[in-house]
Amino acid sequence: MENILDVVIIGSGPAGLTAAIYASRAELEGIVIEKSGMSGGQIINTYEVDNYPGIPGVSGFELANRFREHCDKLGMEFAEGEVERIDVAENGVKTVHLEGGKEYKTKTVIIAGGVKMRKLEVPGEEELSGMGVSYCATCDGAFFKGRDVAVVGGGDVAVEDAIFLARVARKVYVIHRRDEFRAAKSLVRRLLEMDNVEIIWDSVVEQINGSDMVTGLCLFNKKTGEKRELTLDGVFVAVGNIPLSKSYEGVLELDENGYIIAGEDCQSSVPGIFAAGDIRTKPLKQIITAAADGANAVTAVEKYINEASGSF
Amino acid sequence: MENILDVVIIGSGPAGLTAAIYASRAELEGIVIEKSGMSGGQIINTYEVDNYPGIPGVSGFELANRFREHCDKLGMEFAEGEVERIDVAENGVKTVHLEGGKEYKTKTVIIAGGVKMRKLEVPGEEELSGMGVSYCATCDGAFFKGRDVAVVGGGDVAVEDAIFLARVARKVYVIHRRDEFRAAKSLVRRLLEMDNVEIIWDSVVEQINGSDMVTGLCLFNKKTGEKRELTLDGVFVAVGNIPLSKSYEGVLELDENGYIIAGEDCQSSVPGIFAAGDIRTKPLKQIITAAADGANAVTAVEKYINEASGSF
Repeated sequence: MENILDVVIIGSGPAGLTAAIYASRAELEGIVIEKSGMSGGQIINTYEVDNYPGIPGVSGFELANRFREHCDKLGMEFAEGEVERIDVAENGVKTVHLEGGKEYKTKTVIIAGGVKMRKLEVPGEEELSGMGVSYCATCDGAFFKGRDVAVVGGGDVAVEDAIFLARVARKVYVIHRRDEFRAAKSLVRRLLEMDNVEIIWDSVVEQINGSDMVTGLCLFNKKTGEKRELTLDGVFVAVGNIPLSKSYEGVLELDENGYIIAGEDCQSSVPGIFAAGDIRTKPLKQIITAAADGANAVTAVEKYINEASGSF
Repeated sequence: MENILDVVIIGSGPAGLTAAIYASRAELEGIVIEKSGMSGGQIINTYEVDNYPGIPGVSGFELANRFREHCDKLGMEFAEGEVERIDVAENGVKTVHLEGGKEYKTKTVIIAGGVKMRKLEVPGEEELSGMGVSYCATCDGAFFKGRDVAVVGGGDVAVEDAIFLARVARKVYVIHRRDEFRAAKSLVRRLLEMDNVEIIWDSVVEQINGSDMVTGLCLFNKKTGEKRELTLDGVFVAVGNIPLSKSYEGVLELDENGYIIAGEDCQSSVPGIFAAGDIRTKPLKQIITAAADGANAVTAVEKYINEASGSF
């Protein structure tokens, strides 16, 4: 008879890795599917994490490694692949299809696929991506030593990126469409103390200029109607995220922004399929809350398997 | 004018300490009230924690220290005291009254007071408490080196206690009122592998025997109706928890077991009062989910203060 796993965990960020830790300890037979050969999800691009309790002032990369090492100590299996779709049979068995044809049969699925960076969707952005347009300050910031850059956005990530870049670059513009930041106040204060940072409020980017390298930006002030051009060498886009839920459209209920609808117990609209971490509808998207989702999802998985045990 | 704090955090377990970390980073003016002079809550009595992601195989005591050090790095204030009650004025200002008369005025309160051990409520228990009856195997286990003990209960804590005690004691009986454990399977397997452990299923303790030291137990088998006496030197009670919510009766809505009714955003039935960690109604009580509550509660605090800012 074909092997049916207890759980397939999709994604290896904090939610997926915590699910893996809890699943190992519950002795569930499972596998973690990760897109790239590297665990950690979005946090591997975070310069410094200071709000994961018990591990202050750690790089996201290091924290991701610690999570992964914790999993490996407990023996969970990992595989590389992209999920194409999930089928649910009448008896409740799920088949997770990967691109390239590989598939896994399983009693339950925990989707912890996370989110990706949102783009500005303006002229020049795609053409100049990698040639001065970046979505990761900690990855690419060092290339802009002594040069002028802009950060677009107003949340935690935008302000963190600007603080990081201000230590490297000659000048950092922060372009934000509102007149105050959503970021944590302590971050905002640190940003405002830096003397090579200029905040441009109420403004949006209309175009990124340059032929084979970024040379500047066209801005539009939404309050005054004024247009303005900036000359600079790099643009860091930090305007939020898009949930990576496309493979689950039509199978699971998604909200209007594409997040999988699921509460604290991570139960999606399909019994036995759970959503954990940033990909689900939740009040606060943080490492610690993603990790908690991983624990909650495995508890829900165990409950589902126990209750459904007759039908598999 | 009298100083009104942004937030009073009651309790310094994982939920309270995480709330303190998030509140510090949000630059809220606040204070943590802790009952004893030691942070960590229940986890300081846990021999080994292996499911807090990123810090595998740590003692609860050490983990509590790491949480507290993280807080101290960020500068949150702590005070010792027991909460007597909370008053809510018509303008929304809360007064947290401590025993002994001290009080704090605050815009918001995060109650993270946790739970305490449930007792058996049988003859001999109170009289012999500390004389062979214990609620903490990691605290008292070493006193029973080479002797015979019983653990009463069937959850994670009971099984963990029994494993811990089996390394120290000559013989460990585990007395459980059902015919299977609720504890994680990996724990149960480890327990069953130990050759000085005997499980007594379907049984409850009717009486703890002894005059000034425990000498034995009277058991009742619920399935067979059989009574039985055990001769032993110690009894470790691990039959669950009672939420420490008595001070909030009549102010907040509690469920039938005394847990503060609050969802993932930690909002209680009173605006501006939040419940985080084991003390609230929630699907899974773990360190990681308590910590997530701390983060969620502070986010809800910030939202409440921003929206209510006119009224204070």
